[in-house]
Amino acid sequence: MPQVVFSLDSTKKFTEQAIVGHNRWHGDIPAQVQVKPGDSFRVHCREWFDGAIHNDDSAEDVLNAPLPAVHVLSGPIAVEGAQPGDLLIVDILDVGPIPQEDSGPLAGQGWGYTGVFATKNGGGFLTEWFPDAYKVVWDFMGGIATSRHVPGVSYTGIVHPGLMGTAPSGALLAKWNAREQALIDTDPDRVPPLALPPLPDSAVLGSLTGADFDRVAAEAARTAPPRENGGNQDIKNFTKGTRVFYPVFVDGAKLSMGDLHFSQGDGEITFCGAIEMGGFMDLHVDLIKGGMETYGVSENAIFMPGNVDPLYSQWLAFSGTSVTLDGVQHYLDSHLSYQRACLHAIDYLQKFGYSAIQAYMILGSAPIEGRLSGVVDIPNSCSTVYLPTAIFDIDVRPSASGPAQVEQGMSVPTASF
Amino acid sequence: MPQVVFSLDSTKKFTEQAIVGHNRWHGDIPAQVQVKPGDSFRVHCREWFDGAIHNDDSAEDVLNAPLPAVHVLSGPIAVEGAQPGDLLIVDILDVGPIPQEDSGPLAGQGWGYTGVFATKNGGGFLTEWFPDAYKVVWDFMGGIATSRHVPGVSYTGIVHPGLMGTAPSGALLAKWNAREQALIDTDPDRVPPLALPPLPDSAVLGSLTGADFDRVAAEAARTAPPRENGGNQDIKNFTKGTRVFYPVFVDGAKLSMGDLHFSQGDGEITFCGAIEMGGFMDLHVDLIKGGMETYGVSENAIFMPGNVDPLYSQWLAFSGTSVTLDGVQHYLDSHLSYQRACLHAIDYLQKFGYSAIQAYMILGSAPIEGRLSGVVDIPNSCSTVYLPTAIFDIDVRPSASGPAQVEQGMSVPTASF
Amino acid sequence: MPQVVFSLDSTKKFTEQAIVGHNRWHGDIPAQVQVKPGDSFRVHCREWFDGAIHNDDSAEDVLNAPLPAVHVLSGPIAVEGAQPGDLLIVDILDVGPIPQEDSGPLAGQGWGYTGVFATKNGGGFLTEWFPDAYKVVWDFMGGIATSRHVPGVSYTGIVHPGLMGTAPSGALLAKWNAREQALIDTDPDRVPPLALPPLPDSAVLGSLTGADFDRVAAEAARTAPPRENGGNQDIKNFTKGTRVFYPVFVDGAKLSMGDLHFSQGDGEITFCGAIEMGGFMDLHVDLIKGGMETYGVSENAIFMPGNVDPLYSQWLAFSGTSVTLDGVQHYLDSHLSYQRACLHAIDYLQKFGYSAIQAYMILGSAPIEGRLSGVVDIPNSCSTVYLPTAIFDIDVRPSASGPAQVEQGMSVPTASF
Amino acid sequence: MPQVVFSLDSTKKFTEQAIVGHNRWHGDIPAQVQVKPGDSFRVHCREWFDGAIHNDDSAEDVLNAPLPAVHVLSGPIAVEGAQPGDLLIVDILDVGPIPQEDSGPLAGQGWGYTGVFATKNGGGFLTEWFPDAYKVVWDFMGGIATSRHVPGVSYTGIVHPGLMGTAPSGALLAKWNAREQALIDTDPDRVPPLALPPLPDSAVLGSLTGADFDRVAAEAARTAPPRENGGNQDIKNFTKGTRVFYPVFVDGAKLSMGDLHFSQGDGEITFCGAIEMGGFMDLHVDLIKGGMETYGVSENAIFMPGNVDPLYSQWLAFSGTSVTLDGVQHYLDSHLSYQRACLHAIDYLQKFGYSAIQAYMILGSAPIEGRLSGVVDIPNSCSTVYLPTAIFDIDVRPSASGPAQVEQGMSVPTASF
Repeated sequence: MPQVVFSLDSTKKFTEQAIVGHNRWHGDIPAQVQVKPGDSFRVHCREWFDGAIHNDDSAEDVLNAPLPAVHVLSGPIAVEGAQPGDLLIVDILDVGPIPQEDSGPLAGQGWGYTGVFATKNGGGFLTEWFPDAYKVVWDFMGGIATSRHVPGVSYTGIVHPGLMGTAPSGALLAKWNAREQALIDTDPDRVPPLALPPLPDSAVLGSLTGADFDRVAAEAARTAPPRENGGNQDIKNFTKGTRVFYPVFVDGAKLSMGDLHFSQGDGEITFCGAIEMGGFMDLHVDLIKGGMETYGVSENAIFMPGNVDPLYSQWLAFSGTSVTLDGVQHYLDSHLSYQRACLHAIDYLQKFGYSAIQAYMILGSAPIEGRLSGVVDIPNSCSTVYLPTAIFDIDVRPSASGPAQVEQGMSVPTASF
Repeated sequence: MPQVVFSLDSTKKFTEQAIVGHNRWHGDIPAQVQVKPGDSFRVHCREWFDGAIHNDDSAEDVLNAPLPAVHVLSGPIAVEGAQPGDLLIVDILDVGPIPQEDSGPLAGQGWGYTGVFATKNGGGFLTEWFPDAYKVVWDFMGGIATSRHVPGVSYTGIVHPGLMGTAPSGALLAKWNAREQALIDTDPDRVPPLALPPLPDSAVLGSLTGADFDRVAAEAARTAPPRENGGNQDIKNFTKGTRVFYPVFVDGAKLSMGDLHFSQGDGEITFCGAIEMGGFMDLHVDLIKGGMETYGVSENAIFMPGNVDPLYSQWLAFSGTSVTLDGVQHYLDSHLSYQRACLHAIDYLQKFGYSAIQAYMILGSAPIEGRLSGVVDIPNSCSTVYLPTAIFDIDVRPSASGPAQVEQGMSVPTASF
Repeated sequence: MPQVVFSLDSTKKFTEQAIVGHNRWHGDIPAQVQVKPGDSFRVHCREWFDGAIHNDDSAEDVLNAPLPAVHVLSGPIAVEGAQPGDLLIVDILDVGPIPQEDSGPLAGQGWGYTGVFATKNGGGFLTEWFPDAYKVVWDFMGGIATSRHVPGVSYTGIVHPGLMGTAPSGALLAKWNAREQALIDTDPDRVPPLALPPLPDSAVLGSLTGADFDRVAAEAARTAPPRENGGNQDIKNFTKGTRVFYPVFVDGAKLSMGDLHFSQGDGEITFCGAIEMGGFMDLHVDLIKGGMETYGVSENAIFMPGNVDPLYSQWLAFSGTSVTLDGVQHYLDSHLSYQRACLHAIDYLQKFGYSAIQAYMILGSAPIEGRLSGVVDIPNSCSTVYLPTAIFDIDVRPSASGPAQVEQGMSVPTASF
Repeated sequence: MPQVVFSLDSTKKFTEQAIVGHNRWHGDIPAQVQVKPGDSFRVHCREWFDGAIHNDDSAEDVLNAPLPAVHVLSGPIAVEGAQPGDLLIVDILDVGPIPQEDSGPLAGQGWGYTGVFATKNGGGFLTEWFPDAYKVVWDFMGGIATSRHVPGVSYTGIVHPGLMGTAPSGALLAKWNAREQALIDTDPDRVPPLALPPLPDSAVLGSLTGADFDRVAAEAARTAPPRENGGNQDIKNFTKGTRVFYPVFVDGAKLSMGDLHFSQGDGEITFCGAIEMGGFMDLHVDLIKGGMETYGVSENAIFMPGNVDPLYSQWLAFSGTSVTLDGVQHYLDSHLSYQRACLHAIDYLQKFGYSAIQAYMILGSAPIEGRLSGVVDIPNSCSTVYLPTAIFDIDVRPSASGPAQVEQGMSVPTASF
């Protein structure tokens, strides 16, 4: 086990820890930890809602989730010698739930959750059809997740951080704020909103205090979206063994991470989210000096996934095109076509005895693959979603004998305003 | 080898064959061939431009490609007993280039091509950056493609039909035409157009003649987009061993297929297209009577991919978000974020000595994977594109020693209006 | 399709073909075909018993199989410039059943067979428990084999040549004959024999005639065993896409091949054999001049398997140790421990309704893996045999609900002296 | 983390622990721990030599290894309700090095070792060519092993227990002792010995004392070989996610385990051994009552490997036949043919700058595959050994440009009597 450089106590809130992390992006948040190229180290990560979501059978906590406070991140970690223009190599040596704690009230202590926000809280990918708040709880055993709220499925974890990235420079941050505000301004009252502007309320900025805190809190970017620094990419393939290359925008790179997922489907379509949990990451860092120019990497993370993900050899796939459920034709809209593919999968799974929300939860949390299969065939894009058949206890393949039925138990907790 | 039920002579044009296929969708195009559930049979398929694209070093043919005449399809094939509401099971027993012909002037005779249309001809996924017409030619040997126009890469073929589907009912066809015309009407003069309306010019409708021909030609849908009947889905995973389930909308199902690809990346981003070729398909069909209702499949093909695709274990991946190159923030636009991911990959490959168009051609034709990684993190979606490192002769991984350089030979043929 | 350099007519016997191959190893058998490094070419291959085994429900043909006449090989093929000390690179571009012929009396025409010899004919790996002659017939469709004699299984073909190799030099041949005769001499009357000495009876030696024929027939080695030149290695992983490196012992290398298999388990434990068939191979050859010394390859073929074999992700495995069924302890005998592992698998499969011989046939013909798991733990070696569960229609995993039962149809044809 | 039921303190010897395990097999060794079907629990395991092998650059410790004291096992663990005739299901939920301890003097604390015994101590699979004692030390980081004694290789761990099994009944134990003594009696003075008889010296028998200890010590079987109860099978595929089914021979089943390996090649050809270490196992147990009869499993463990092993897609393979290096022909001896395949691989790797012993160490510790490719082609069996090319930093494929050379550092520690 590498040395723990960012330690968390599961019994304390994020802001009461020995080292306080942050929940906004800003280059002026001081580094809390210093490492060197070639170092390996462990970082503890808090589940993204800092313990507000409980291991119970109610979705009230998801309905009332403290959105301004996310994501609670570990960091910033300064890497000695890192300068703007470098590529920061981050090897994910290991990542998992909270070590040595397999029971307790905090997600990551042997359990995790998948939620869907109510529409007015941000909804999810399919919020038009699932307008309320929903939650399912997953139990972890032996690297496998099962749920009392979703019968007949078990997934081998593809544990990964939903969020990791370097700090933006001042110029980059200004660009973010300007372009996102411009989008918000096109429809400022939209529910859910088009984007999230800086929000001093609930901001946590590490060791900053006083005037510095106020200035940074007013400028710092929210952590919801992925951006040029990586950030909340929610790439389910950032599993153990993955090597990521991040652009460096500030001295020391100032790496941060969090939002750990036990498992997730491509897209994290449930939004709140994958199978959410706290836990740890073992990381190794190195630098390619001047690597941004050398490799033409200016504004995105590139990566090489690890080689120990669960191997599946049989998939059932659904396709969708960019026509709305109401029959309106859109032009090459891959977002829409992926929605339609997911809805087709949900329709299908209901024939096996699943409720619609259970099927949605499966798509959000299982290691499904979402592909941009066709993006040029005007006017329809074709997106596809692949389900590994091995995650189901029953045979979910179509056949002349008709669909088998899962045995239902507890239904999915739901809450609405 | 199963019996050939739809035979083509490589030396004759599509309209001069013993059985003439079709290039429009309409339920009234008579079935040319009758098969029974449980039958296995072979179908020959013509390359989608009917031989207009040549094995040479010029892109003039792509610039002047006969767009109204695509896609030249084999079929319709009636399946005995198929009725609206059934699911048609289609097993792809085998699919490959033109059998026993490994040289000749027709794509599929030992070679294939990847093209990019000029913008005014429809462009491609990245037409803003690649406005001209381009072409590269690939040679097939031992199931592997290499190109004199793209150095240092070789791909094991993932041969598949870009297009396969059942015939639409009259009501379904009317729905298609109405919704697509409505889209066109929003910007009727756009170049490239938003959608393609019915076009009697160059229509080929099997055995139809006279007034029937005229009526059907005026109504029949173009084959470019994927729709409820499957159609031009361009799903690269329809390889040997795949089982597809199609909704049946008319008596006999009336299955048609074509647009064979030797290889393709997710999205077929080059548009003209994958590695295009003529060839054959060996198919087995069966029915699930009433399967559409039984399995909740009303308007999309579902499928189970085969298990003999080339296995890769190391990938280099690039991410993109829904911000334009000009810095404009879009809202959860996965199409845009996939463009940005692809552009990032192109930037990167240029550092290894590839030209931009060569890199684009690789992304369009190699077995790359395009994923909808994050679709909820407002305002940015996150799309990713994965390149198998094994397709490159040189090591394309980032390292402290900097990028190796491919040895350039012939450049990519280009043509413009 | 590459040019056919060694053509066979399915309607004619091996000795009546336009080019007559050979069924013994000797450096003086003249090359029938000349190719150059860099060439690609097609070779037809006859099934190893030259059509003596029929597509019927009797095992009399296996009982009376013409053993002295095997293996009927295609070749020798001289490679221009090849000299002793070189490594001959052979790329298996493609390999399959008889092209364009999917029905007919010859194995490879849409069907193949797996046999077990009676003990006095050579038996099989488990001849003590299966002393008679047995045969099952497999039908090929879409690259998948099924059998009327073995219910409830279907295998995706892993087509490969059981036998391929270069010609021995005179010195090497003399070494073979001497060491094998020495073994025979230790128990010359054993049934089955310990080894097979040269046998002029039924020898086919290409274009040789007269005194040359007589001399060579008296010296030439039988083709049964693998040796320094490759030969009858029966490595099931010589599938499409494989690159093999053979030592060159004579000028021109004199490559020969045959004994095609549609599928086989590790070990080819049924002996007669895998799923046997005639067919074709598309090959590409090249040379590494002086490669034997450069790479330390003096007396064995080395190879790199292809990447398009069927992917399985779930296996059921059985172990065995080197103790006989009678309870006698042997010392680190991996042959025995593999027998015991296979017998354990056969015991197990019988609980699912298979007959013992059906289970044996499955192990011989399905893509099972046989591993030398432990070879040092005195006195027991540990061998293991892995069955992909996906080849079975029923669930063959152990569970509290007990074994499902396959539905039996036709039993396995059996014959005895 | 499941509850620890068998805890070890890394600073104390095996016999000084709170619960003392055992190093012999006997049904009368009392269970130390009681679990129930359905339970999950953690077990600590001591490295097999109880700390006698050090993280240094000398092989004296391997030369003088305390052989009578192996293997130090954790257990026996009684499973409530288990009776003779049942199948005990053991799920390997997780397995790894010593948790939370990544440095220290005990193998498993961030490091492990691979050794080869001197011939008089038992040697290894290739002891004729490697008669001395050798040792290499591996460092673990991020689930990957590298060694200062073996340049240019790194392996993703395939962590597994070399040894796990149930206790024998009295009758079964008597059978073991009788058959192994009979083998020893055929050559009682052989070096290394043919088998290991019961040995009271150094016996550790859990809580037994006094006359019971003496009686059991005189009867109990050594742990070196695999037997009907599983035992020291050294199956490298018992990785995380594996389900094993053990026959139950005594009330409570009395499961024990140990001899953890960070990585191993098929065969564990180095004998001392794989990459040896102490660590932990998380297990889940269940019963199939009467399962031995139901499933025909009487005298072997059957298993289903997990699905998270590292994925490799390119292999370089070597073949061998059953002819000795001196040219003596053996009859279908797969042990010999695997030796020859391994020696061929060693010859080959030396051309890349490896010493012979380094190559041997790679084969013993890397995730190589050893296959029984042909076992019927008299007189030669054909065994093959597959090396994943991705474990090497340099390109180890044969090519016209000749072998690259690894950069040598520290040589392999060696010691001899």
